[in-house]
Amino acid sequence: MSSVKTKIPAFKDVKKAHKRINPYIHHTPVLTSSSLNKILDTEIFFKCENFQKTGSFKIRGASNAIYSLSDDDAAKGVCTHSSGNHAQALAYAAHSRKIKATIVMPENAPAVKKNAVAGYGGDIRFCEATPQARQAACDKVMQETGAVFIPSYNDLRIIAGQGTAALEFLSEYSDLDIILTPVGGGGLLGGTSITAKEINPKIQIIGTEPEMANDAYLSYREGEIIPVENPNTIADGLKTSLGDLTFAAISENVHDIVTVSEESIVEAMRYVWERMKIIIEPSSAVPVAALLSKKIAIKNKRIGVILSGGNVDLDNLPWCL
Amino acid sequence: MSSVKTKIPAFKDVKKAHKRINPYIHHTPVLTSSSLNKILDTEIFFKCENFQKTGSFKIRGASNAIYSLSDDDAAKGVCTHSSGNHAQALAYAAHSRKIKATIVMPENAPAVKKNAVAGYGGDIRFCEATPQARQAACDKVMQETGAVFIPSYNDLRIIAGQGTAALEFLSEYSDLDIILTPVGGGGLLGGTSITAKEINPKIQIIGTEPEMANDAYLSYREGEIIPVENPNTIADGLKTSLGDLTFAAISENVHDIVTVSEESIVEAMRYVWERMKIIIEPSSAVPVAALLSKKIAIKNKRIGVILSGGNVDLDNLPWCL
Repeated sequence: MSSVKTKIPAFKDVKKAHKRINPYIHHTPVLTSSSLNKILDTEIFFKCENFQKTGSFKIRGASNAIYSLSDDDAAKGVCTHSSGNHAQALAYAAHSRKIKATIVMPENAPAVKKNAVAGYGGDIRFCEATPQARQAACDKVMQETGAVFIPSYNDLRIIAGQGTAALEFLSEYSDLDIILTPVGGGGLLGGTSITAKEINPKIQIIGTEPEMANDAYLSYREGEIIPVENPNTIADGLKTSLGDLTFAAISENVHDIVTVSEESIVEAMRYVWERMKIIIEPSSAVPVAALLSKKIAIKNKRIGVILSGGNVDLDNLPWCL
Repeated sequence: MSSVKTKIPAFKDVKKAHKRINPYIHHTPVLTSSSLNKILDTEIFFKCENFQKTGSFKIRGASNAIYSLSDDDAAKGVCTHSSGNHAQALAYAAHSRKIKATIVMPENAPAVKKNAVAGYGGDIRFCEATPQARQAACDKVMQETGAVFIPSYNDLRIIAGQGTAALEFLSEYSDLDIILTPVGGGGLLGGTSITAKEINPKIQIIGTEPEMANDAYLSYREGEIIPVENPNTIADGLKTSLGDLTFAAISENVHDIVTVSEESIVEAMRYVWERMKIIIEPSSAVPVAALLSKKIAIKNKRIGVILSGGNVDLDNLPWCL
């Protein structure tokens, strides 16, 4: 697998990232659920990135990228294409460094997402909802302004930044047997795997993915990137496919990737809302779904779960439709 | 005001209650919201009883009452009438002491509440939805079984138990300027006031109540209990009127009671869900509504808010109807 030799961040990059972004992010709490522990006969610890600034872990990577820029580069601003949590995170982090962020979003993005980006001070450019159109729109911004493109996951600074969630988590709970994250583009899982492997090599690092967007599952098993075209899953943060950097990190460090059904994602999301009284978005429910639907052997284990975010449209909940 | 001379729990009773119930409850976390602090120009600390066992602070009073019983009395079981959080709490606490709890509920209680009580092992007896019918049903249970009646708020053991939330809170944050709770029957506000007054006499203790169920507001101002008949508010935990014991505690210790509109309750609830990513029930949103609608002078103050519970019917959210 040639891709395994692709350069990926080292643990020291994660530690540097944490030092860099620490003033700008929340040190999120770790919660447990006695009812969940009881029904699963195990001990589960939830790192609550849904409580993170901008409502997801994405602020970690975005802040690391933005605060890594030289003053000259920063002065030109940053841009990205995203209609999800990376868009909000980049807008927020740019605002905190007092630089401009241009966010390319498809015209048909939900109003709640447009409003969030605008609310954090991001400058939105609309484009047609195709990969070509969004890249062209970003290229145009870069040409016009010299803005630095900050990808949403396939980037060394982003991967190192996302690894800081596990760094905080495992600094407090180093003796976990298993750590679970959702996997979309692979920034969170990649960064988590680099960190977990170094802090405690005994930890099993497992990615969890919707069956309906199972590119990481397939790529991991085949040893090459197998993108999934136009996946349709309620876990809207996990529709993206791995990039070469995240694939390399995952191939090298991750012990398994499991998939879960759409139904089990909604059920897990509702379970967490009802029993833990915290709001998680569908993407965050994916590892919980893997636990509840017994996709992983967990009896009497200590499991860490990174709850990736809590940005949901309260007017469009899956059980109110 | 003769009622002020009514015997109310002392601070030492709250401390005893905490020692008694400590093994059976969660020490709930205190959360903050940087966005809320920013828009209100103040510092707010939320004691998250929505994360408490059974989803509300009610387990504190119920556990204190149940674990105060002699073995002989306990053996006969307990009973109450409630279709709310006290019902679930009493069922749970009785189960934890391995005694029987009979819960009298109106036939038309929501299925979600019946299921919760049954899920905690409570034995449900249905009655017509009138105060007379529910008391008669309780009397019958007591006659048949010798069960001990545990009221939902107007009881020294219950008030002392509810005061333990403030005891934990103020042990960690003793330098608050103001502490806010919702007020329904007055158990939480009464217990909080006894505790706060003793730990830091400078703390302003303020009750918050729906305009549509403003009996405590009226009673506090008039100096006598003025019940409100059949109040209609979305804050379903706050429909009850004060009893003589809770009125006495509140009259003696509380600095003010303010009321809020139904609209502001829904808005505050949604604000907390969206920004803090935690699930609170409408009753918990009442003090937040008081803050957001500027009912209290709070600029540059340190405010403590007890979020009383998080039991909502996710199929019937106010913004999905």
